[in-house]
Amino acid sequence: MRASQESNGVSRAEDRVKRGVEALERVDRDGAKKILENLQDIAPDFARYIMESAYGEIWSRPGLDVKSREMVAVAALAAIGYAPSQPKLHIRGALKVECSRKEVVEILMQICLCAGFPAALNGLSAAKEVFRDLDKSQ
Amino acid sequence: MRASQESNGVSRAEDRVKRGVEALERVDRDGAKKILENLQDIAPDFARYIMESAYGEIWSRPGLDVKSREMVAVAALAAIGYAPSQPKLHIRGALKVECSRKEVVEILMQICLCAGFPAALNGLSAAKEVFRDLDKSQ
Amino acid sequence: MRASQESNGVSRAEDRVKRGVEALERVDRDGAKKILENLQDIAPDFARYIMESAYGEIWSRPGLDVKSREMVAVAALAAIGYAPSQPKLHIRGALKVECSRKEVVEILMQICLCAGFPAALNGLSAAKEVFRDLDKSQ
Amino acid sequence: MRASQESNGVSRAEDRVKRGVEALERVDRDGAKKILENLQDIAPDFARYIMESAYGEIWSRPGLDVKSREMVAVAALAAIGYAPSQPKLHIRGALKVECSRKEVVEILMQICLCAGFPAALNGLSAAKEVFRDLDKSQ
Amino acid sequence: MRASQESNGVSRAEDRVKRGVEALERVDRDGAKKILENLQDIAPDFARYIMESAYGEIWSRPGLDVKSREMVAVAALAAIGYAPSQPKLHIRGALKVECSRKEVVEILMQICLCAGFPAALNGLSAAKEVFRDLDKSQ
Amino acid sequence: MRASQESNGVSRAEDRVKRGVEALERVDRDGAKKILENLQDIAPDFARYIMESAYGEIWSRPGLDVKSREMVAVAALAAIGYAPSQPKLHIRGALKVECSRKEVVEILMQICLCAGFPAALNGLSAAKEVFRDLDKSQ
Repeated sequence: MRASQESNGVSRAEDRVKRGVEALERVDRDGAKKILENLQDIAPDFARYIMESAYGEIWSRPGLDVKSREMVAVAALAAIGYAPSQPKLHIRGALKVECSRKEVVEILMQICLCAGFPAALNGLSAAKEVFRDLDKSQ
Repeated sequence: MRASQESNGVSRAEDRVKRGVEALERVDRDGAKKILENLQDIAPDFARYIMESAYGEIWSRPGLDVKSREMVAVAALAAIGYAPSQPKLHIRGALKVECSRKEVVEILMQICLCAGFPAALNGLSAAKEVFRDLDKSQ
Repeated sequence: MRASQESNGVSRAEDRVKRGVEALERVDRDGAKKILENLQDIAPDFARYIMESAYGEIWSRPGLDVKSREMVAVAALAAIGYAPSQPKLHIRGALKVECSRKEVVEILMQICLCAGFPAALNGLSAAKEVFRDLDKSQ
Repeated sequence: MRASQESNGVSRAEDRVKRGVEALERVDRDGAKKILENLQDIAPDFARYIMESAYGEIWSRPGLDVKSREMVAVAALAAIGYAPSQPKLHIRGALKVECSRKEVVEILMQICLCAGFPAALNGLSAAKEVFRDLDKSQ
Repeated sequence: MRASQESNGVSRAEDRVKRGVEALERVDRDGAKKILENLQDIAPDFARYIMESAYGEIWSRPGLDVKSREMVAVAALAAIGYAPSQPKLHIRGALKVECSRKEVVEILMQICLCAGFPAALNGLSAAKEVFRDLDKSQ
Repeated sequence: MRASQESNGVSRAEDRVKRGVEALERVDRDGAKKILENLQDIAPDFARYIMESAYGEIWSRPGLDVKSREMVAVAALAAIGYAPSQPKLHIRGALKVECSRKEVVEILMQICLCAGFPAALNGLSAAKEVFRDLDKSQ
């Protein structure tokens, strides 16, 4: 992965973790902090693994812009449907990277086609809470 | 829906079906034909309903460009994971509307984060078949 | 859809929405109102789309009586398992259209065969809340 | 379970298995045989357990007629979506107990509301194969 | 099932229920009581069926030790992802039968490979609550 | 991850990939080769990522023995149900690391409790094919 930077076969673990934390903080500073804190006492390695392996590798790859990555994440999480807090993290993330509220709503409406109305409605409830929180914090 | 055109409260069913068929044919002419043919003898109303309600309404809404719609569909269908033929239809669709093969592959790789490696690998197998078919037909 | 009424190819959107609202109100007046209110500020078109496309079309089709439709909805939503509030809506709906509490419980017990005990138990918890609310409101 | 017959707290295992086999054979004789044969060399206890515990107990309970049980099974299996051969068994079963082809198709169409179009389309493909096999065998 | 004890084809239903209650109480005394109480007014037969059929039969089979059974249950429930309370029951159960907290955490971390990060994170949240409750009650 | 070896914050990417390939080959030599080959032309980075991130990190962690890891994988994949080829890889893997065929069958039977009979039956079909292939190749 990221061959140009790592063609010597050496990849400093710390660098990958740092790259991942930065990638996640760029889209959701509080989300990153919250994930890390939540896992600190039960699975600190896993917090590190998420930053390194999910955000430091997959998420940091060129080939797909970060707005598209957030749209993909919102769509996939809403379609799966069982993880109420993660869609919220990525809805916040999407809004941070040029996705309009309208686009988020359209993505979630479209989910009814692939995964049915309950999944779409659950996604829209998550979006509603995110929008309300953002309006309050302004 | 589509309020500007239908503000008089009249929406010709035929128009919505026609709009849907056109929307689907724009991204996958053969896919549209195949869906309609497959349903013809068992549930012809359902073929019509898909065109009218999915492609003629949700899919034809402004607010999200068709490339994003296809990316959302590929992501959601790969994440759900149980429907091998539908991801292929939308992978073909995505390629028709400016999505590069590389972007499709990145979307499917990213699915491992939300839904695990089996879902991502199944999605990539579907993409591989689509790419191969396209290469053959040229 | 509903060819006899719409054979001239014209279907007044308002009529379909009205038919859907009536269909939903017949089984769950408060449920219909709540869905519409919840979506009002975030996705009003989607509220309308659900009434028109889900309840005004699929749900209003002849060929399956409304009691069977509610039983199918309870079963499918319990089997999917991720949508706690929607099973409740359709459990209330089923009770409104001649389904006995006993039948609802039997349907949810049977779900353990197709989808495992957690799905069945979650469905029964939803039913328990619905029954309790109904007993209180009398 | 089945308290009236078993109020003495004794339930002959063989009786429950026999009751289950009869219940399954009543809706799908070949399906029952096929399940038992498939499991014979790998998990014969499981074949017995399915007959005893699924069909001999849940399925044989009063409180829900067998037509409704088959409709519930078709709906739940189509909604889950990952098990192509089981919906077919219960589609055949439904047809054996007074469910019309039209009702089966309506149930499967309705699944698009709870679980999306791919699940509904997969269910309809299964139904199509069942109908075709039945037409051939006549 | 359990052929040696039941080779005469007679299996006292009460014995199977008792065996199941004992099996569940061995891993989670309060869990067993809670399941039975929760179902008492809505589906008492189902409480009995779970004890008899799930814990008295499958769970009581030789061929897999109870620690492995609990690990399998934790893994499967976390992978499915939609049932927050059941993973907790089996996380408590696993800890009762020699599974270390570390092993539970490793199982849940590994779930990210099969089912994605949201499923793993939801599982770890459940584990965190169980660990905290246990620490408090000491 | 793997702090003792990497406490200087440097982790050679090649080492992690090598560790992953070895870990996978230890349980399924042909499986490893097949995954790598299948991805070679469409997503070679992903093949590398799976080896590095799944098998070189999570799978290679101490804290859970490899037999337990394979049992967890078989259980989770069978419970999810939509990925027919992956359960087979891990059933083969489990047999390689001291899991008996009987234990694999018990795990898959137990899946009916968490995820229903179709998931358990699909898992048992996968096991049957694996057992048959192994018997043939001897």
